Amino acid sequence: MAESHDYLRKGQAIYERSFAIIRAEADLARFSDAEAHIVVRMIHAAGLVPLADVIEFGHDFARVARRAIEAGAPIFCDAEMVERGVTRARLPARNDVVCTLRDPHVPEIAARLGTTRSAAAIDLWGERLEGALVVIGNAPTALFHLMERLDAGLPRPAAIIGVPVGFVGAAESKDALAADALGIPYLIVRGRLGGSAIAAAAVNALASDLI
Amino acid sequence: MAESHDYLRKGQAIYERSFAIIRAEADLARFSDAEAHIVVRMIHAAGLVPLADVIEFGHDFARVARRAIEAGAPIFCDAEMVERGVTRARLPARNDVVCTLRDPHVPEIAARLGTTRSAAAIDLWGERLEGALVVIGNAPTALFHLMERLDAGLPRPAAIIGVPVGFVGAAESKDALAADALGIPYLIVRGRLGGSAIAAAAVNALASDLI
Repeated sequence: MAESHDYLRKGQAIYERSFAIIRAEADLARFSDAEAHIVVRMIHAAGLVPLADVIEFGHDFARVARRAIEAGAPIFCDAEMVERGVTRARLPARNDVVCTLRDPHVPEIAARLGTTRSAAAIDLWGERLEGALVVIGNAPTALFHLMERLDAGLPRPAAIIGVPVGFVGAAESKDALAADALGIPYLIVRGRLGGSAIAAAAVNALASDLI
Repeated sequence: MAESHDYLRKGQAIYERSFAIIRAEADLARFSDAEAHIVVRMIHAAGLVPLADVIEFGHDFARVARRAIEAGAPIFCDAEMVERGVTRARLPARNDVVCTLRDPHVPEIAARLGTTRSAAAIDLWGERLEGALVVIGNAPTALFHLMERLDAGLPRPAAIIGVPVGFVGAAESKDALAADALGIPYLIVRGRLGGSAIAAAAVNALASDLI
């Protein structure tokens, strides 16, 4: 059959050209090499070069999060889209990727706490949170609830990707994380932007550095 | 335990306030009510009001796609994140939501055709494509490949959501769909923006109109 459209068909070539375009257009000067590697892949997932201007790393995130993944840390996600977007084949230690949103206990916990199911699902992470990578890619309420639980003594994760998206609470929850992360390394996107694709891209970037 | 952060915790209230902010900020004048309903939810998923300026509907998309979903049309997705993002409880006819990307035949098809796995996965949709809703939320190659197959006589879907994201082929694939969709109703996002969250939000908006 004749190919009626002229377009690049090879996945690797598409990635390479995409990353070259992003590096040519985005101002990455304020990032370390390891951070820029993550930022490029977040921009790629969003189709949005100005994302570079609102990404912020704290407390040596890139190095600490990579080391955690390499050591086999589980990856806890607030949304199924985030969980689904993590490319398992890239993970260096067959890391567990966990989303508890559909656990049958979640609706009851959410009703009792008067919060969203996304926030309530965090209460099922338990002791496994110690040393884990946490990825909040959807719900500001989940990020706020995580911070409250950490303040109350929940085990400390190794690092937090806090990139919830939206118009109510997203910017505030990320500002709060950056202002008081209890010293836990973090990656945030300031303002309204964020979301599951950006969150999964950050995890995949962390993993792809290692193999 | 004291609640240390002051934020909106009720899911329904968060949705309502978010949608009100979007309607206050976005210029939705050129859309029908049914289209604006979809656009608002796509903006909500992206955290990006200017998305309104690059969304385009063709051939009575909103009405035709809603009717198809209501009639039980299956929903074919190019990416697992899209498939996962479709809220099953909202679908009016227990519609199948299908992603064939991980079918074991896909790598062989991709190698034979010299294209991506996302494009190759479309060749497994077969006769069920007739009257279906197609959702391309990730890969430009999948949208190009779909158009080539439709040109060659593949059964016609009821409607196409064509919102692949990125820097290589995304804008071109969506321009091509709008220029020559064979009369099939379409929803596109012009340019680089798009992605699985936006795609899933469009499907969920279509479904939520009906219940």
